[in-house]
Amino acid sequence: MTSSGSILWVIANPDPHSLSHSLYRHGVEHLRAAGHRVHDVDLYATGWNPVLSEADTLGASGATFSDRQRHATTQDTLPADVARQQRLVAESDTVIIHFPLWWYGMPAILKGWFDRVFTNGFAFGVRDRDGKVRKYGDGGLAGRRLLPIVTAGDRADALGPRGISGDIDDVLWPLLHGTAHYTGMLPLRPHLISSVNQVGADTYGDLAEALTGRLDTLGTEPPIRYRSLRGGDYTATHDLRPQVRPGEHGFAIHRLDSSNHPGLQHLRR
Amino acid sequence: MTSSGSILWVIANPDPHSLSHSLYRHGVEHLRAAGHRVHDVDLYATGWNPVLSEADTLGASGATFSDRQRHATTQDTLPADVARQQRLVAESDTVIIHFPLWWYGMPAILKGWFDRVFTNGFAFGVRDRDGKVRKYGDGGLAGRRLLPIVTAGDRADALGPRGISGDIDDVLWPLLHGTAHYTGMLPLRPHLISSVNQVGADTYGDLAEALTGRLDTLGTEPPIRYRSLRGGDYTATHDLRPQVRPGEHGFAIHRLDSSNHPGLQHLRR
Repeated sequence: MTSSGSILWVIANPDPHSLSHSLYRHGVEHLRAAGHRVHDVDLYATGWNPVLSEADTLGASGATFSDRQRHATTQDTLPADVARQQRLVAESDTVIIHFPLWWYGMPAILKGWFDRVFTNGFAFGVRDRDGKVRKYGDGGLAGRRLLPIVTAGDRADALGPRGISGDIDDVLWPLLHGTAHYTGMLPLRPHLISSVNQVGADTYGDLAEALTGRLDTLGTEPPIRYRSLRGGDYTATHDLRPQVRPGEHGFAIHRLDSSNHPGLQHLRR
Repeated sequence: MTSSGSILWVIANPDPHSLSHSLYRHGVEHLRAAGHRVHDVDLYATGWNPVLSEADTLGASGATFSDRQRHATTQDTLPADVARQQRLVAESDTVIIHFPLWWYGMPAILKGWFDRVFTNGFAFGVRDRDGKVRKYGDGGLAGRRLLPIVTAGDRADALGPRGISGDIDDVLWPLLHGTAHYTGMLPLRPHLISSVNQVGADTYGDLAEALTGRLDTLGTEPPIRYRSLRGGDYTATHDLRPQVRPGEHGFAIHRLDSSNHPGLQHLRR
């Protein structure tokens, strides 16, 4: 990452004394010391309202809710809290999404950050010169990087390639592919901190070091490479063409890199 | 389903004039006419607070947030709105979760229903006589059925087995496996209503009929069969044993039924 990189760090954790908050403060300081501009948004501390509702589209017209959201975006009448977050996203090179895994997804307060901020006309529903909607590998947020930092009570194996909870990359498909890739962002491999309830003073230092090591390569590490909609691999109805990985199913068929676990590639099909 | 079946229908949609609300009213009436007891919870209409916070564990003790949530559950000091929803879940045979697919997951208001209602000591963290935690095929909600009803702007193919958005069963893994199966509930195949923005007066009748047809088999249709933690297929660290589907990855390896698309089984490995 260049020294002028602009980073938005969004954290959702209800406990300001949590391990997550310690790592968050450490990480933000580390990035600033390295010369990056960092905006940080603590959703619990700021009392973020996560409920997307008709209140977000007051005065906007359109037949469907999505149409009204689009109209509010393009006529610049979104609520001030949403507009401010959109500016922060627009100004960033990298967005860090930091949360505890609750029911194998984001806490509601964070899910609702995406619901309200990633509006039609801003993050998606944006068209190219030919009038085609830019999505899946292109979109309103094209080129920005997205790094999930995830804390989990599960042990690491349970969220590994054959773990009972599902591989963390697959579990986070809605964020990595359905949100980041869909809007043109480059999803980075999740930074997973497992067994959080077993972390003691003796292991905290290792976790902090692993995190800063990860942050140091934020701008240069290769993102997960999903197939793009316009790359020729999909049919007009958005099905993977029969000749591409014929007969196979599962999320892996949508990746151009065969695995995000380099050491395990030989185990993967 | 027996005529005495008790059903909880939870809907999250910000637009009371939406297709979803029409289908919801139609479905609830249909179930009642068939003799079922139905409790319905409209999260937007009731102004549900989806943010799990320290306010939910006031007066409870414990080192971690999860410990305090457990203590509040067992000492019966959860907020009244949460306690009421827990009673509705406890009294139900089937829980219907009805929502529009936003960023390939639930709207925040619904995600926060799970975050706040499915507490430690109620839905999970419950132990058997031997002191083992009941989870993945067993848990605090064992035996209840869970049916997701999902509306999506995507066309059907995009959410099919080889669709760019991912198979809807895989996309909803956090709900079907990570939440339902994890707490002992029996997940039913999602009832997907795709291309919702293209539905007109001419096609509404077909959608309503497909829904009531589905509701008529709610109590008898076979649920998705995921492997249970105690069934012998997993190691002590919750990894699938090497001899079970050796070398394979992806969510499919955790299913006992090879597919939820009977007509496509021959295509699946």
